[in-house]
Amino acid sequence: MERFFNARSVVVIGVSNSPGNLGRAIMYNLMEFRYQGVIYAVGPKGGAFMGHRIYPSVLEIPESLDLAAILVPARVVPEVLRQCAQKSIRRVVVQTAGFGELGEERAGLEVQIREILRDHDMRMIGPNCIGIINRANGLAVPFMPFRMESPPGRVAVVSQSGGVGGTMINSLATENLGFSKFASVGNKLNVNENDLVAYLCEDDETDTLFCYLEGIADGRRFMEIASRSAKPVVVHKSNAGGAGAVIARSHTASLSSDDRVVDAALKQAGVFRALEQREAVEMIKAFSLSPMRGSRLAVISRSGGHAVMAADAADEYGFQLPPYPRDFAELVRAESRAKVIEPHNPLDLGDLFNLPLYLTLASKTLEREDIDGLLFIHNYQGVLDAEDSRRLVRGLGDVIGSCRKPVAVCVFTMQSELEVNRRAVRFPIFTDPREAVRALAWNRGFHARRPLALSTRRPSGVMPEKARALLEQCANGPLHSRQLAPLLSTYGAPLVRHRHAANEGEVLASAAELGYPLVMKTAQPEVLHKSDAGGVELDLTDERAVREAYRRLLAIGPEVLLQRMADPGLEWFVGGRQDRTFGPVVVTGPGGIYVELLGETAIRVGPFGEEEARGMLDELKGASLLSGARGRPVLHREGLVDLLVRVSWLLADFPEIRELDLNPVRVYDHSCVVLDWRATLSG
Amino acid sequence: MERFFNARSVVVIGVSNSPGNLGRAIMYNLMEFRYQGVIYAVGPKGGAFMGHRIYPSVLEIPESLDLAAILVPARVVPEVLRQCAQKSIRRVVVQTAGFGELGEERAGLEVQIREILRDHDMRMIGPNCIGIINRANGLAVPFMPFRMESPPGRVAVVSQSGGVGGTMINSLATENLGFSKFASVGNKLNVNENDLVAYLCEDDETDTLFCYLEGIADGRRFMEIASRSAKPVVVHKSNAGGAGAVIARSHTASLSSDDRVVDAALKQAGVFRALEQREAVEMIKAFSLSPMRGSRLAVISRSGGHAVMAADAADEYGFQLPPYPRDFAELVRAESRAKVIEPHNPLDLGDLFNLPLYLTLASKTLEREDIDGLLFIHNYQGVLDAEDSRRLVRGLGDVIGSCRKPVAVCVFTMQSELEVNRRAVRFPIFTDPREAVRALAWNRGFHARRPLALSTRRPSGVMPEKARALLEQCANGPLHSRQLAPLLSTYGAPLVRHRHAANEGEVLASAAELGYPLVMKTAQPEVLHKSDAGGVELDLTDERAVREAYRRLLAIGPEVLLQRMADPGLEWFVGGRQDRTFGPVVVTGPGGIYVELLGETAIRVGPFGEEEARGMLDELKGASLLSGARGRPVLHREGLVDLLVRVSWLLADFPEIRELDLNPVRVYDHSCVVLDWRATLSG
Repeated sequence: MERFFNARSVVVIGVSNSPGNLGRAIMYNLMEFRYQGVIYAVGPKGGAFMGHRIYPSVLEIPESLDLAAILVPARVVPEVLRQCAQKSIRRVVVQTAGFGELGEERAGLEVQIREILRDHDMRMIGPNCIGIINRANGLAVPFMPFRMESPPGRVAVVSQSGGVGGTMINSLATENLGFSKFASVGNKLNVNENDLVAYLCEDDETDTLFCYLEGIADGRRFMEIASRSAKPVVVHKSNAGGAGAVIARSHTASLSSDDRVVDAALKQAGVFRALEQREAVEMIKAFSLSPMRGSRLAVISRSGGHAVMAADAADEYGFQLPPYPRDFAELVRAESRAKVIEPHNPLDLGDLFNLPLYLTLASKTLEREDIDGLLFIHNYQGVLDAEDSRRLVRGLGDVIGSCRKPVAVCVFTMQSELEVNRRAVRFPIFTDPREAVRALAWNRGFHARRPLALSTRRPSGVMPEKARALLEQCANGPLHSRQLAPLLSTYGAPLVRHRHAANEGEVLASAAELGYPLVMKTAQPEVLHKSDAGGVELDLTDERAVREAYRRLLAIGPEVLLQRMADPGLEWFVGGRQDRTFGPVVVTGPGGIYVELLGETAIRVGPFGEEEARGMLDELKGASLLSGARGRPVLHREGLVDLLVRVSWLLADFPEIRELDLNPVRVYDHSCVVLDWRATLSG
Repeated sequence: MERFFNARSVVVIGVSNSPGNLGRAIMYNLMEFRYQGVIYAVGPKGGAFMGHRIYPSVLEIPESLDLAAILVPARVVPEVLRQCAQKSIRRVVVQTAGFGELGEERAGLEVQIREILRDHDMRMIGPNCIGIINRANGLAVPFMPFRMESPPGRVAVVSQSGGVGGTMINSLATENLGFSKFASVGNKLNVNENDLVAYLCEDDETDTLFCYLEGIADGRRFMEIASRSAKPVVVHKSNAGGAGAVIARSHTASLSSDDRVVDAALKQAGVFRALEQREAVEMIKAFSLSPMRGSRLAVISRSGGHAVMAADAADEYGFQLPPYPRDFAELVRAESRAKVIEPHNPLDLGDLFNLPLYLTLASKTLEREDIDGLLFIHNYQGVLDAEDSRRLVRGLGDVIGSCRKPVAVCVFTMQSELEVNRRAVRFPIFTDPREAVRALAWNRGFHARRPLALSTRRPSGVMPEKARALLEQCANGPLHSRQLAPLLSTYGAPLVRHRHAANEGEVLASAAELGYPLVMKTAQPEVLHKSDAGGVELDLTDERAVREAYRRLLAIGPEVLLQRMADPGLEWFVGGRQDRTFGPVVVTGPGGIYVELLGETAIRVGPFGEEEARGMLDELKGASLLSGARGRPVLHREGLVDLLVRVSWLLADFPEIRELDLNPVRVYDHSCVVLDWRATLSG
């Protein structure tokens, strides 16, 4: 990636002097951002643009080149890439649209491109993107002209949409944050967000990463990179599946994933997911503040109403508001006009007109050991107090600069005054007390986070080789219970005592061995819904009942499964499947009547350890059923935890197990037992 | 209220020439807003200000006066009010702080003020407020100088905090909405938000109302006014109860209510509650659009990424996206550059550089009968396309003006460009696709709303006179079951068959009458938790068991309640209490194990009818337990509905019933039965 962003020479391919030529905008951007390297232009019509000769072909440029930015018709792209290869250009940004996002017929072009890249060891960003920017060296190749609005910042922007990426750059400028590097990834035919995020996590000029994504190329790698990152990663993932899926497909050729899996996976990796652009900006603002290392918040507000809102929000987001010390209160009271100020926290300064004192109060507050962060709210109309207020806001910059605790500043005034303030300072300004408190909560959350992402240690007693041997004998499709049950046992799933049988003799022998009462179920692999098919016989108490039941089940087929009838208990379900981008996913929740009542499931990408499994149960309301309230027994929660871990490993070790369903799992006070199992294999 | 806002003369009391005098700011505001009436100033030091003589007393002003704006020290306020009375001024705005919000010792001043107002038939806004503004006649008396930023708008602002009110005025100016009237209500000693809201609901210059409140003075009246309003009412209610309560008390002397009751009551009255300032602004923007009368949304976007977000949001907020017709698609394709535009809805115009055509597309879309509203998203960096884009945004103003469907316009560009656009048009601009879609959803919600608020028809068979007679015999405190049971019966609550008894003879006779099996409970009124006190004897199957049980219960006291042992069934709870501001409140939810499992309750202010009661059940997940899924029987939901209505009437008719608790109510397939009852009376 370094060779993309730090290219010392760049050629723009597709420049002409005809009006509306987009290649010219790339040239413009390189000038606007003061690119420190050498620029060349290529276009079939020749001529010159902005003092640069337009070469008819890249092959005619006399010097060697680090990077090509390509904006030529789609059908010409392969030929241009071959010329780049011939010229030993190893990094290309292809901005041309009209590939996979238009459907199958253009996929042929993509195949050609992949081959050229592979054959010549080239890396490509795009196609169908608007390019990259490096603020440090002025490399800026978007075909949409940007203005260099703000000084370089420390936020990197990776966007699957040029428009959304541009919007974020504008927002960062508005918020006084700026950006370090920008990349629009488009169709991600070669370089994807993982390559960029991995690079930016190590980039010295970047403190915070923002990604707008419509699809995630390799979810597992993304999780690994993000969970190892020492920097906050904010992801705005759109294309949740419904109407968005159609337009995302035609926009950047992105397929949608199950949005709940995306949500779970990002949370697991310690990523902050934003649901809208504005929330993403709020999060980035949050992380730009110094670390909030506790929950003790001080609020100073010139407006009583905003102080009330701040206090409500402090409650909502779990902050404490330690009282101000007595001498501090006296200082405030001595200066206040009608002595109506009460030294509560939030401190309402409505009646204190000595604005310079506000700065002293802020500094004194931040010095306190029992305060982890400050929310400072200023409110003015700007008719008489504009100068004093502007000076106050500028002064806060010094207060912020001289302390290591976070200070969220809210300013309420006319829009024009707000802009004056923003231009005068270098910190972000908040415009809602609740937004500011939420930002401090995100900040606190980041500095307290412990992403676990994926486990690397198998639980004790699992036997992958034995499982492999069993699976090698299985055909694709629904697994036979005779095959699945031993497979599950190799990973230590606690199956109910059972026997398989295929004729009356086996049935009776099995029954005698298991003891009564018994359950008998059809085990014909083709039967998907055993109950619906009349394939379940309950509560068989003696040999005669078993014999009669078997005769009824014979109508479905000879294969049956006999189990000891389990005692009543709490029903749970444990399932899993292979997600297209995140791989093995485990799902669990209370079963039976609670499925519709609570409608809740916890989801994790596997494999994971016990801590993640406990986290799954913790997030379920229904987990209170396990905890023995209201005179009920405390149930074997750790048994479920263990089963979840084992299932996550089974699915991770064997991606050919497409779906697995253990339902019900019955949970007792000292054990949990799997009563029914189903799985589907695919090659 | 009319006489406040349309005063033809106003006297500002508390003006001097000393620097920092706040009365001068009031004079300034009257000038700035071009007050059309006559202005007088009063201050003990005399002199002149801005060409106006400062009279030493209001009594020396030669003409009659409609309104006084008073900003003098708190202890002087009663005397100034007496002078106003003498001068026949019937409307006063008292801005002075330092009354109830400072605590008990200042309450004496409030008593004096109330007396003066009552004796002279005067109305007062405040104290501790920043005053009122009427944009139509320029009456503007805040003591904080405002700038007349934007033309008059059609949003009225009522705020319990001057600072928050000012912030809203600034936001409305930023959003091109402006305001019609403004009132800061402060401590609400005389005029409260209800007086103002009732007036503004009828005000010809107001289309939408916004209220910021820290406490609600008379919640029932507020509900009645709001539910009758033909205009949308947006309420930002802070002071949710925790840390906010302390600061709200010292800010505007507001006590907090149970926030869940506030939430339920506002919803019931069809009010839109905002959780933060920005959400309030979003809602007001939403209601400023033409009515969204259905769910069929068209989206036109220049940016594919924003189109994907819009489609996601359309799903989230329940909008359909009908496809564009074929000829429309052809029109787009013919003009598009690389022919990569697919005519999906959202329509992604990324490759169409003919901006004037965008307006044609918008107009054509709005003409379609199968489209209820349009989201138009434009995105530009403003380097080359600023002029075309500005023209496009201005052109959208004409499109909006010529159609009766809502058009939400999103513009993404640099902040400075955004401000240029905002100053050039009269409609609000959105800056997030999800915000815009949410706004259309709120708009749709308002035009489809049917607030029911409070019922006026008692259910059949209730006997208020009989209940009154029974209650008259009861003392305050926990009600005796012997008194409560017949009281509940007068309102038709379906109590389980039962008898009260106070000696062994009565017990045995009652048992014989009820039949076995039986439950016997202590009915000593002083026992609050019968089970904990060992006061419940279950499953008594014969006379001997009854006799033995009674002997055990005698240790607690002689009074017992005998009931037929009820069959197992679903447990529910129905309760209620008197809320300080909203009056009778009914609470219900699934009982037994579901209390902790679901932790959910539905709340309504009473009295209400069956429709509201059904609504309560509809909002509970646990209501699925009533609906007979998974082979369970369908339960008697209507029995619960009926009970809820009756309880709401009982509490409404008798505010002296402070708390009522029917728990459990057992629900069967054809009946529901109250098994236990408790209530507390207060005078």
